[in-house]
Amino acid sequence: MGEERNSAVLIAVGDELLSGIRREGNCASLAWRLHDAGWRVERMEVIPDELPDIVDALSRWVGKVGLLVLSGGLGPTHDDKTRAALAKYLGCGLAVDDALYDRVLSRYEGARRERLERSRPLQGAVPCAARGVYNPAGSALGIYFEREGTKVWSFPGVPFEFEAMTKQELLPLLPPARGWESVGIVGVPESLVVERAPEIIADERLHISVLPSFELVELVIRGETEHAASAANAVRERFAADALPRGCVTLPQAILETGRNRGLTVSCAESCTGGLVGASMTDVPGSSAVFTGSAVVYDNEAKKKVLGVSPLVLELHGAVSAECATDMARGALELYGTSVAVAVTGIAGPEGGSGEKPVGTVWFALASRVGGAVTSDAFLRTLEGGRDLIRERAVRVALSAVWRRMCAL
Amino acid sequence: MGEERNSAVLIAVGDELLSGIRREGNCASLAWRLHDAGWRVERMEVIPDELPDIVDALSRWVGKVGLLVLSGGLGPTHDDKTRAALAKYLGCGLAVDDALYDRVLSRYEGARRERLERSRPLQGAVPCAARGVYNPAGSALGIYFEREGTKVWSFPGVPFEFEAMTKQELLPLLPPARGWESVGIVGVPESLVVERAPEIIADERLHISVLPSFELVELVIRGETEHAASAANAVRERFAADALPRGCVTLPQAILETGRNRGLTVSCAESCTGGLVGASMTDVPGSSAVFTGSAVVYDNEAKKKVLGVSPLVLELHGAVSAECATDMARGALELYGTSVAVAVTGIAGPEGGSGEKPVGTVWFALASRVGGAVTSDAFLRTLEGGRDLIRERAVRVALSAVWRRMCAL
Repeated sequence: MGEERNSAVLIAVGDELLSGIRREGNCASLAWRLHDAGWRVERMEVIPDELPDIVDALSRWVGKVGLLVLSGGLGPTHDDKTRAALAKYLGCGLAVDDALYDRVLSRYEGARRERLERSRPLQGAVPCAARGVYNPAGSALGIYFEREGTKVWSFPGVPFEFEAMTKQELLPLLPPARGWESVGIVGVPESLVVERAPEIIADERLHISVLPSFELVELVIRGETEHAASAANAVRERFAADALPRGCVTLPQAILETGRNRGLTVSCAESCTGGLVGASMTDVPGSSAVFTGSAVVYDNEAKKKVLGVSPLVLELHGAVSAECATDMARGALELYGTSVAVAVTGIAGPEGGSGEKPVGTVWFALASRVGGAVTSDAFLRTLEGGRDLIRERAVRVALSAVWRRMCAL
Repeated sequence: MGEERNSAVLIAVGDELLSGIRREGNCASLAWRLHDAGWRVERMEVIPDELPDIVDALSRWVGKVGLLVLSGGLGPTHDDKTRAALAKYLGCGLAVDDALYDRVLSRYEGARRERLERSRPLQGAVPCAARGVYNPAGSALGIYFEREGTKVWSFPGVPFEFEAMTKQELLPLLPPARGWESVGIVGVPESLVVERAPEIIADERLHISVLPSFELVELVIRGETEHAASAANAVRERFAADALPRGCVTLPQAILETGRNRGLTVSCAESCTGGLVGASMTDVPGSSAVFTGSAVVYDNEAKKKVLGVSPLVLELHGAVSAECATDMARGALELYGTSVAVAVTGIAGPEGGSGEKPVGTVWFALASRVGGAVTSDAFLRTLEGGRDLIRERAVRVALSAVWRRMCAL
């Protein structure tokens, strides 16, 4: 019997994760689902593709927690060592689970099947003291055993295989979720959020996480369902126009919700963000009810041709200007026929900055239609960070501007 | 003196990471830079926001490695416990470093400065046996000490603050990089990549990571600079048309490189990917030399209005069809005036699937201009996974199709 039946440890095996070549995502996703179902994730570790490290991790956690999940190291290549490590830990040999591997192979044909047949001795091997786990999304078998009250699963690290196998195997372990609520607050600094909700932060019956990010602070409130919900409502009331609508954690969700409620549609015109605003909007299923599209106009010819930006504007003010942003927003409003359009044009770097317009200079414009009349306005933000961060922040600024405009219409 | 001067352990502190609400990124980014500079990252851990866990992590690693970096838990809120844990580990008290905190505060004005002044006792506190570290990007001070040959830095977890402080503090620890080469191979299964380069995989003087992802296998080859480079060239030759050009790790980089070399330009038309293809292309600085833009047409009206998709096509075949994809690709080719255009239209789910067109059905089309004539063709892929994965895979398919077409023109 494990010390803590409802606690879990997640371990990712892989030199490519420790060297930063790949970013760990499997354990992070699983942590979310476990947590949501009331599990306590005690630890996540990334360890090397080495036999002693894998054996050591098993020794440290088996018997201490209810669930131990390993990701990675089960593939057909020379650096896949998890099978051998599990066998070593269990003090047994490895044997191919032919029936299970045949079942996997039956999904493949031709040359691919022949190749996988050759990988049978590696990908089909299972420690004799454990059982093989069918892989519904790939070819490497998973492994399961229970020892000292700890259930141990080992899944391949390929993200969609890991996901498919956790779904297949772990679903019965995931009881219904506890109460939790999330409140998104736009454009208010973290410290002010905390200061303005002191009695909620101090409430011993709640577990509150304050998650600041650019332009948005998220409060995750966990506790007894009704109590968490009433705390969340109190926070939403206190922050009024700055709080995202109930049920919305992200700005795109809020835009979709507000658009649906008010019968508004949205389009974009993007230069430096290159499609990221559209991609964010369409992250949310069902977004086509509100979001019609985005004109990505990365070079100046496209700005003129697709959105009708005036050649004179480009000549006099350049592509990164209030005038160009305004032409872009008005162009998108017209092209897509929406109620609101937002435009983004700026210098994401690392090249292209100047003394007058340094890297991070981003112009935004909003155009909206009320009755027959189109109004527009532009504003400048100077964003810090490298290229990725500037683009990401520009998306956040654009989305928050659109959302506020929609609320004001 | 630490056991291993050139080894590092990275620890992220945060309940929000263990509960999967936030995804760890700081340690992963730093791992990449350390690795590139010849450090061996022994372990990455995510631990709870709890005093005993933080103290335990310090006890386990101080004296064992040359470098220990902690991320998170230094902010102004109730769940920030890293300062107290470091003081407890060092067996000393906490005192505010007023001079350093004043220097931070001097960057702020007005109400924000007043708020930060109130956080002084928390954000400015440093264990008496350590020194404070200036934060150039935020307000919480970092902490540094050295013990038993281990240099320990503790930085705030806000990603851009963590990044700015690692740059400021760790740069002197990062010697010039070792030799490493990356070869991207498109559309060849992992096992076949390994089978076709046996002598390179087996070469003891090289450290090879095989990183399979959808439609692309990346071989990272590390070793003595010239030896790694010649191995990489050998792999590139062996895979000929399937290997990305030298210096290109991703498909957008390859498209940019190939476009520049051959004087070709590219545009897109996106429905279900919502801008992700454009966003990927513009990830690469300087991409405007080849990539002009993307028409994101998420609803059917936009498909007709922006790209001239025939209403009859939408009525007879629907938006997810060869005909619609073809109209979209031809429309984008015309609208942006490029040499090649790629269109993506599909059902990313979770809703919208049918028996005939299940979730994951995605049509792609390529249009290209040779001399005055426009040719186009369409193909279907049925992609597995949830919404995010289907969209991500659709981007990969679109990019790999564009790249192959550009190579063939």
